[in-house]
Amino acid sequence: MDYRALEGGREFVARLEHDRDWRGQIESFAAEENIEAGFFVGLGAVQDAEFYFYDQTDKEYYPASFDEPLEVASCVGNISLLDDEPFAHTHAVCSRADGTSLAGHLNSATVFAGELYVREFDATLRRAHDETTELDLWPF
Amino acid sequence: MDYRALEGGREFVARLEHDRDWRGQIESFAAEENIEAGFFVGLGAVQDAEFYFYDQTDKEYYPASFDEPLEVASCVGNISLLDDEPFAHTHAVCSRADGTSLAGHLNSATVFAGELYVREFDATLRRAHDETTELDLWPF
Amino acid sequence: MDYRALEGGREFVARLEHDRDWRGQIESFAAEENIEAGFFVGLGAVQDAEFYFYDQTDKEYYPASFDEPLEVASCVGNISLLDDEPFAHTHAVCSRADGTSLAGHLNSATVFAGELYVREFDATLRRAHDETTELDLWPF
Repeated sequence: MDYRALEGGREFVARLEHDRDWRGQIESFAAEENIEAGFFVGLGAVQDAEFYFYDQTDKEYYPASFDEPLEVASCVGNISLLDDEPFAHTHAVCSRADGTSLAGHLNSATVFAGELYVREFDATLRRAHDETTELDLWPF
Repeated sequence: MDYRALEGGREFVARLEHDRDWRGQIESFAAEENIEAGFFVGLGAVQDAEFYFYDQTDKEYYPASFDEPLEVASCVGNISLLDDEPFAHTHAVCSRADGTSLAGHLNSATVFAGELYVREFDATLRRAHDETTELDLWPF
Repeated sequence: MDYRALEGGREFVARLEHDRDWRGQIESFAAEENIEAGFFVGLGAVQDAEFYFYDQTDKEYYPASFDEPLEVASCVGNISLLDDEPFAHTHAVCSRADGTSLAGHLNSATVFAGELYVREFDATLRRAHDETTELDLWPF
């Protein structure tokens, strides 16, 4: 495992805004507060969700969209720079009224309500192309 | 996104008690330790679970109960005050022996075993009625 | 709820290595850095996954293996000592291209890509046999 010890920075609690995009709001916040490294966890509900599934053979993302109200049972992600802009790498587990769940890499979702804890680090994390996976990863 | 920077307070590691309610124990702990703001993550197993699904149109919670042993694959939540009492807003992803999962807003669950990390903030967070969603949210 | 207030230690951000075991890497890292207490959250993708489901009646773990590429929509876990070695108690929610998810206690999984936040505590946590559940728990 490649890793880096980081000094903790600021800590934030946030309320995601109704009718706006889940991931987009995190990225706007990171830009506004100059956050270049952080992790977050959250929960809430969305009005729809688009997941991106990465095909490990094709090395391509394929979307799966769900146009229905869903709880966000878990949201785990991080903030780092991709092409000099804050990118919120966001995974989520969403669920329907019967408890069945849909999960993965969350590209976009219209917020119904959402709550987040963001842990900033006093550091800059930058993503770069990784040849093995063809993903943008942290080159520690 | 509406947010607030908070100073970190105490940090706790906890073992949930067998045969008692998952969420109730977190709230009793928060009351005992005077925690008025915090986030937590956890994992474990429960003997049953009741989820509440919020109908975004009706603006009502509807319960879905599962009277069966389940792993708690993820638990993410936060502590804040609701009507002057600590409320643990708790979402969980639970799973069966075949790996299929049930997820959502966890109202109650009888603990089999559970482990939690609680990050307190030196702050008071209070929930108040939000007109748009008819939920109790943080009015930052 | 039994609990313990702990002082925060170091914080790490990690990139899990491709083709190696998800949980094994966390344990090797903990051994290398002498981490005896910590919590972590993470996300990523794996090439396969083996979950262990604990039968609450039989008091036995039964495996469920999935030999297929999966997203890791959520990973929550902790590090403590079991028989004097770091043990990473790891739960995960994985998902397929159609969004359906598989979740539970993650025994092993071959990493495709993975990102982790580890919060160390300045403490030693040791697991010991618990008679009620027949699991190794923290005897606070």
